[in-house]
Amino acid sequence: MRVLVTGAGGFIGATLLRLLAVRPRIGDQAIELLAACDQRLPQLPAGIAGIEGDLGQPHVQARIADLAPDVCFHLAAGPGGAAEADPALSRRVNLDASLDLFDTLAGAHRGARGRSEGPPVVVYASTIAVYGHPLPDPVDASTPTRPPMTYGAHKLACEIVLADHTRRGRLDGRSLRLPGIVARPRVPSGLVSAFMSDVMHALKAGEAFTCPVGPEATAWWMSARRCAQNLVHAASMDAAGDGYRAWVLPVLGLSMAELVHPLSMEYGVDGQQLVRYAPQPAVEAVFGRYPPLDDRAARALGLRDDGTPSALVRRALEAGFEGAEDGEGWP
Amino acid sequence: MRVLVTGAGGFIGATLLRLLAVRPRIGDQAIELLAACDQRLPQLPAGIAGIEGDLGQPHVQARIADLAPDVCFHLAAGPGGAAEADPALSRRVNLDASLDLFDTLAGAHRGARGRSEGPPVVVYASTIAVYGHPLPDPVDASTPTRPPMTYGAHKLACEIVLADHTRRGRLDGRSLRLPGIVARPRVPSGLVSAFMSDVMHALKAGEAFTCPVGPEATAWWMSARRCAQNLVHAASMDAAGDGYRAWVLPVLGLSMAELVHPLSMEYGVDGQQLVRYAPQPAVEAVFGRYPPLDDRAARALGLRDDGTPSALVRRALEAGFEGAEDGEGWP
Repeated sequence: MRVLVTGAGGFIGATLLRLLAVRPRIGDQAIELLAACDQRLPQLPAGIAGIEGDLGQPHVQARIADLAPDVCFHLAAGPGGAAEADPALSRRVNLDASLDLFDTLAGAHRGARGRSEGPPVVVYASTIAVYGHPLPDPVDASTPTRPPMTYGAHKLACEIVLADHTRRGRLDGRSLRLPGIVARPRVPSGLVSAFMSDVMHALKAGEAFTCPVGPEATAWWMSARRCAQNLVHAASMDAAGDGYRAWVLPVLGLSMAELVHPLSMEYGVDGQQLVRYAPQPAVEAVFGRYPPLDDRAARALGLRDDGTPSALVRRALEAGFEGAEDGEGWP
Repeated sequence: MRVLVTGAGGFIGATLLRLLAVRPRIGDQAIELLAACDQRLPQLPAGIAGIEGDLGQPHVQARIADLAPDVCFHLAAGPGGAAEADPALSRRVNLDASLDLFDTLAGAHRGARGRSEGPPVVVYASTIAVYGHPLPDPVDASTPTRPPMTYGAHKLACEIVLADHTRRGRLDGRSLRLPGIVARPRVPSGLVSAFMSDVMHALKAGEAFTCPVGPEATAWWMSARRCAQNLVHAASMDAAGDGYRAWVLPVLGLSMAELVHPLSMEYGVDGQQLVRYAPQPAVEAVFGRYPPLDDRAARALGLRDDGTPSALVRRALEAGFEGAEDGEGWP
């Protein structure tokens, strides 16, 4: 089985690549060829093929066509802030290049030597930003999609086109609407949501942290490692019964206080002392009032949250998929 | 005010162009320049500018940018059957070219001498094919969009991107989800829905007709003239309060028997004698079971159906907007 990861140089993409390197399987099938694509790629471990360049460039699409992946994890995207600042860039990167990729994958399959059964599987990293803002209460299968930003609008358009490829039998698409994922590297990103990762890094390091939302502010949390496991699971789960094939991942809905507690326990620090709450209304409005999520359809397919706040903290802050990960009971 | 009609050579586009030629107004503003765009254009009346060519061609987009329309009626599209047979063509024509048009219109406005207030208005001809198939019962504002064909998928993607331009203040978009419109010219089209128009032409001519659905089969009906009036109304109606700005037009839901009766009255023929019902299950499944439509939001904005079955028949079969049309009480 040949597998491609786009956006492999990004935060989630790199985590997924590490997981696939350690456990080179999709469901019950072994990965024979693993390829990573991004504008810029780090030094890749032996055995992983690199495709460096813009997904919108013909030579990149040609190399993907040549690879003819059986499974593609499509994570490449320009971030929401950049998309909002430059909608033309977002159209090229988040919309047109994705539609090109879908066409390339579907076209490459026709003459390929790959899996004999079924069209290429595409696991598409969509976003909870397809929903209105603030998030409707509750979010469930009937929640209307009303993207409040260009990023979400372009992601939703891609979901719809991918679903159409799936209906036609040209691709086997599965769109996962991702929440914010933690813990991103501790570098200035300009993301308003960065505080969700930064508070975790700060407490692990025993440092003080000024939190832009209050202790009761509730958001949806998932570790990058759990996210990567969900992406891999999504590639082989039996999604045939679901019509549109887009799911919000199960998440832990935790207040800041509910997060600070396990962080304090795990790293032996006094979180109540270290964290000073200085709520900013604008931040709290977006990241402080996540509603309940009806994730039964996603759970029934085997998708999972991090289980417990403690496990979330550990997975978010401890690198690597080796060792303990096997004890997590992931199917 | 400068007005552009794309797809002006098509059935609805030509009807709209005739209406705008007779009544050159959008709301309370006079049309100073009327332009028609299509792959091929018929001889245009004096005073209408023609832009002939593929909407996807740069020189066509450049001419539109030069025109800098204040209002654009975007009707150009490849039909559903062609889109289903050739999804790559549909992507170019129904998706990419429309997205290009939106960018062109938004970009042209910035430096234009046009209306000083507000961004360009775009009235987008979407389709009831954004809904699942068969149509959910009833269709209302909360009905999920699940396009069952590539045509509807690409139209829905355009709706979403247009709504995002509207949110950004770059365009002022209004998407109308059109039902089948009657009466199309009596030429072989390959459209399964052609019978909806053909039965009207046949009875007007006093000819026998074999109907592929039964007398109780219920569909949604609207004349091309009423559709054109709705399109013009949509350009100036106050849509600010509606978030997503996509509406199904109010329609007459009529069974074949309910249509044959006024046709018989209007043209002095014996419809019960002339129409032989030979229901084909596949046709009846699609065009025979249209559910009730909750069109209150569209009606509140001033959009309208044809009023009565008799008025539908007259408007569908009698050409021209002169004379009687002023007595129809259209605002």
